[in-house]
Amino acid sequence: MRRCARSWARSSHFAPEVFNCDAPNTGNMEVLVRYGSPAQQEEWLVPLLEGRIRSGFAMTEPAVASSDATNIEARIERVKGGKGDEYLINGRKWWTSGAPDPRCKILIFMGKTDPDNPSRHNQQSMILVPMDTPGVTRVRAFSVFGYDHAPHGHGEVDFKDVRVPVSNILLGEGRGFEIAQGRLGPGRIHHCMRLIGMAERALELMCRRAIKRVAFHKPVADQGVTRERIANARMLIDQARLLTLNAAWKMDTAGNKLAKQEIAMIKVVAPNMACQVIDWAMQVHGAMGVCDDVFLADAYANSRTLRFADGPDEVHRNAIARQELGRYLDK
Amino acid sequence: MRRCARSWARSSHFAPEVFNCDAPNTGNMEVLVRYGSPAQQEEWLVPLLEGRIRSGFAMTEPAVASSDATNIEARIERVKGGKGDEYLINGRKWWTSGAPDPRCKILIFMGKTDPDNPSRHNQQSMILVPMDTPGVTRVRAFSVFGYDHAPHGHGEVDFKDVRVPVSNILLGEGRGFEIAQGRLGPGRIHHCMRLIGMAERALELMCRRAIKRVAFHKPVADQGVTRERIANARMLIDQARLLTLNAAWKMDTAGNKLAKQEIAMIKVVAPNMACQVIDWAMQVHGAMGVCDDVFLADAYANSRTLRFADGPDEVHRNAIARQELGRYLDK
Amino acid sequence: MRRCARSWARSSHFAPEVFNCDAPNTGNMEVLVRYGSPAQQEEWLVPLLEGRIRSGFAMTEPAVASSDATNIEARIERVKGGKGDEYLINGRKWWTSGAPDPRCKILIFMGKTDPDNPSRHNQQSMILVPMDTPGVTRVRAFSVFGYDHAPHGHGEVDFKDVRVPVSNILLGEGRGFEIAQGRLGPGRIHHCMRLIGMAERALELMCRRAIKRVAFHKPVADQGVTRERIANARMLIDQARLLTLNAAWKMDTAGNKLAKQEIAMIKVVAPNMACQVIDWAMQVHGAMGVCDDVFLADAYANSRTLRFADGPDEVHRNAIARQELGRYLDK
Amino acid sequence: MRRCARSWARSSHFAPEVFNCDAPNTGNMEVLVRYGSPAQQEEWLVPLLEGRIRSGFAMTEPAVASSDATNIEARIERVKGGKGDEYLINGRKWWTSGAPDPRCKILIFMGKTDPDNPSRHNQQSMILVPMDTPGVTRVRAFSVFGYDHAPHGHGEVDFKDVRVPVSNILLGEGRGFEIAQGRLGPGRIHHCMRLIGMAERALELMCRRAIKRVAFHKPVADQGVTRERIANARMLIDQARLLTLNAAWKMDTAGNKLAKQEIAMIKVVAPNMACQVIDWAMQVHGAMGVCDDVFLADAYANSRTLRFADGPDEVHRNAIARQELGRYLDK
Repeated sequence: MRRCARSWARSSHFAPEVFNCDAPNTGNMEVLVRYGSPAQQEEWLVPLLEGRIRSGFAMTEPAVASSDATNIEARIERVKGGKGDEYLINGRKWWTSGAPDPRCKILIFMGKTDPDNPSRHNQQSMILVPMDTPGVTRVRAFSVFGYDHAPHGHGEVDFKDVRVPVSNILLGEGRGFEIAQGRLGPGRIHHCMRLIGMAERALELMCRRAIKRVAFHKPVADQGVTRERIANARMLIDQARLLTLNAAWKMDTAGNKLAKQEIAMIKVVAPNMACQVIDWAMQVHGAMGVCDDVFLADAYANSRTLRFADGPDEVHRNAIARQELGRYLDK
Repeated sequence: MRRCARSWARSSHFAPEVFNCDAPNTGNMEVLVRYGSPAQQEEWLVPLLEGRIRSGFAMTEPAVASSDATNIEARIERVKGGKGDEYLINGRKWWTSGAPDPRCKILIFMGKTDPDNPSRHNQQSMILVPMDTPGVTRVRAFSVFGYDHAPHGHGEVDFKDVRVPVSNILLGEGRGFEIAQGRLGPGRIHHCMRLIGMAERALELMCRRAIKRVAFHKPVADQGVTRERIANARMLIDQARLLTLNAAWKMDTAGNKLAKQEIAMIKVVAPNMACQVIDWAMQVHGAMGVCDDVFLADAYANSRTLRFADGPDEVHRNAIARQELGRYLDK
Repeated sequence: MRRCARSWARSSHFAPEVFNCDAPNTGNMEVLVRYGSPAQQEEWLVPLLEGRIRSGFAMTEPAVASSDATNIEARIERVKGGKGDEYLINGRKWWTSGAPDPRCKILIFMGKTDPDNPSRHNQQSMILVPMDTPGVTRVRAFSVFGYDHAPHGHGEVDFKDVRVPVSNILLGEGRGFEIAQGRLGPGRIHHCMRLIGMAERALELMCRRAIKRVAFHKPVADQGVTRERIANARMLIDQARLLTLNAAWKMDTAGNKLAKQEIAMIKVVAPNMACQVIDWAMQVHGAMGVCDDVFLADAYANSRTLRFADGPDEVHRNAIARQELGRYLDK
Repeated sequence: MRRCARSWARSSHFAPEVFNCDAPNTGNMEVLVRYGSPAQQEEWLVPLLEGRIRSGFAMTEPAVASSDATNIEARIERVKGGKGDEYLINGRKWWTSGAPDPRCKILIFMGKTDPDNPSRHNQQSMILVPMDTPGVTRVRAFSVFGYDHAPHGHGEVDFKDVRVPVSNILLGEGRGFEIAQGRLGPGRIHHCMRLIGMAERALELMCRRAIKRVAFHKPVADQGVTRERIANARMLIDQARLLTLNAAWKMDTAGNKLAKQEIAMIKVVAPNMACQVIDWAMQVHGAMGVCDDVFLADAYANSRTLRFADGPDEVHRNAIARQELGRYLDK
């Protein structure tokens, strides 16, 4: 996927219209690459890679706390129907980023195929649901700090008696949690890469502004407090970058499962670092920093979101601690 | 002004339509009360108090850093004109909150009547400019994060050869800086009162949500980390409230000038406190915290703005330090 | 107790030798005032007030976590003995401040008189144990950050078959927890008062040093970063002071029990504030800040200790949160 | 210097008596390796490497702020004397770590050979001064917090008409600042390596204690707040380690001069990280954390010292910011 490698070089989450290099598309494409059948890849992955369509990932639900990834109520039932064997889907999803976009043609939907399975990790499946299937309704779109992020958007989607072919299931019944784990890990590092890029841009803006703007007869860049923040920003960014590169290396050499700790760490570090750096950059711009003459407020909204999306900080910290303490139990 | 006292009791910055209890109206009404002539009060203060019109305060300019309140380029020149003695006004103002609102009928405008005066504090004057005066143009409106705060809004306003009667000047030529200082002090404490109210509401929302929401089989309120933040929020809010009440008492008993240090301190403390408390409340709501199903993201945007509006934190901290160090110079 | 009021005015924890105005003496004297019999007061309170002897409070034990005040293993058994009815005491106490001091003549000892009582709050009693009673052994003294705080010190004391008259018990059997609560509340506010005084001295030292010391051709006081810290220190100290005065007022008007929340809050706020202010003051002194040419390092050690002594921060925050959440349960 | 590599593996600043692997010895040995003549190396480096003697670095002076490394008053004058050509040394140094130690045999002394040189960077020289030279007086020793760090210690040393052979000068007159820069860079990374080791030990102690200690019926390790800190500690340590390894790699491949920014960054990051991690570890130990039953309080004292020794944080941040801003000046 060399096209998506270019997003790294550009260090920006504002993907150009030609390639799908943003969330949730990069994560969804990874799912299709890893878990899709040849037919599914032909039908959905190719157009996504070519940027002809967009996608959404329908996992979070309004009724339950999504910090627990097994906490799903939506149902996927195997039934016989008009078109032969089908799955019948019912549920309500929200924060399905990309769903409001008219170019969004396909959703990866997570629901329970086997709610009574004693193992919580085998109750769920993931299935492809084309947006235009009868019963799929875009209910509304959410804003994030007032930004609707149109046309992309973040949607609430209702699924009422939606029927899709059995062949739309990914991997097979009960494999949902496994796929989610496989998707979320790499998805997280993509977020971190984009956040580091955002922070670098914010720091550059901060420096340029501080050099140009004069207050009380001297450039803002000459103020000790501004310099202290610039230095702290540089140290925060570089540490986050090294931690992320280290996680990437671990994922490449040992695999995502063994890199769990490294991924959890960057998922906490990068959004918090970006929020802090962007906040300092906004401050040096005064009022201009919160309006859309510069990208900072929008960047802050995105970074802030990543402190709970794809696993809130608190869940990841708990996992990191559990692994750290595990080194000493019974020793 | 008993009506505005009710804003304190309601602890909200969302003023009802009946009374003008928000920025910039409270500050502007204070200016008219303290510095307006009987005629000016009759024409503008009464309708403002009755909520029939709204106002704006045109001080900040795009071209210069406004952290220095004497850093103004707009000009107010005394000329003879069609209606007899007039003032001719030219300049460009921005972040004039309230200006985009069609109900905004009057601006208090700050400009230089005597740019060559050796004392920087005597160069400026404040003058009343009705919004419908020829030459006054609403250029555009800004958003704060993604919020346009319509219909209120934040405007960029152009003044090209605007003529107003000489009687529109407040107090007299060269009194502008003095009025600004008189306005900004009380204006700041109003902001702090509203911020404390906002933070209390945010903490209440945080508690209610934490009690109701279950994650990993127990209420979020049972998580040690959540409790730690609730406790820290309570301590931050109470300290900020006591500091604000102390400043109010000092203003009432010793006057605004002698209460300068207290006002500077609450101006730094309250917005930072509110940003932190609201941030914790947002986190406990997950994704819901950043959309408009709850008021938190909008409240965060407002609190964030107050870390530079009416004097950025950095300027106030510098003043506080200078006064603290002054106790020891030459001793 | 007008003598002890002078400690407030002096704002220092370095009590002069004439009066006992430091921990643990102020807390112990409050216990004798509130709970001592006339005979006990005559024998112990008078000499303490006159500064002729010193005291210790033997509560914490090495074997158990003391954050839970009912977690005591030491035993006090009523027996018949040589001198008639007596109490037989066995246990090991540590962090008994003041015990190593030769002038320490009396300990207030906490132990279980009724370990099987179903109510954890009725199992314990407090009893007066003169230091020279056979069986009382000073085992060793601890240092705090290398400071032995001699002659005062912090001791580990062993009690082996120590016998004291029945009349030495305070209030009566099973009243131990009640007395502890009564002692610790006021004890906490004394600590907070002293900490605020310490912080004020540290800030003064910081300002004086910053004014005098020149680096890179200008006084350290001209550095923006130094000023920012001075301002932040002033705001932290004033907020802590107001919160403490508020707690004092609540204790005076509503009583210690109803002031529980206020006391818990200042117990968290004051030591953390002092640690921060003292740390900034140390930094402005460079190497001098950590040696005993100035009082700062010793002050830091004391402030740091108060983040866990008399209840660690974490326990108090939990109590504060529980009370805050309690406003919303079942509503 | 393979012996010193073992200090990295042991991750401790408590060097065994066999090898000199601590400050200031590692830094001094690097000076002799890089700048010493064969005769100087024979006389001093060999015994140091063999651990038979110890050394001190006499640079800081009580009378001037040492954050500016050119701010030296001590004098080194070339004179003719009893033993032929000699240098006459006068000055007062303090915070000469290692000087109080009887095993300290040699000092590297910094003073001005050419105070009137127009370039501040050519005024100074470094010279070897044996401790037993007449005129060298150990004045007193300082404690750091309450630790005297005996026998090593930190000394104030007076130099009155001290005469040493001309051959004792390092490199040549006017090369002092250059040597200082060469010494301090590598010295800084040694500190960072030791600090990371200290922090790892502290985190291990924290985990073991949290697992063993029970409060309110459950292990402290089960408290959410404790887990949050353990996770944050792990993230801070790993980031600091990666930043340090990155600096080491840059020093090895591009040289110390080009690695200036990286060295400045780790010099700020590592001590602050260690202070934070050690502080959390102390808190989980309660009172035990501040006494010498565990190494934490002493470790804190050392980490705290490194926030100003070898360049205070503030000076390094300023340098980091200047380099960051330099990317944008005139562009």
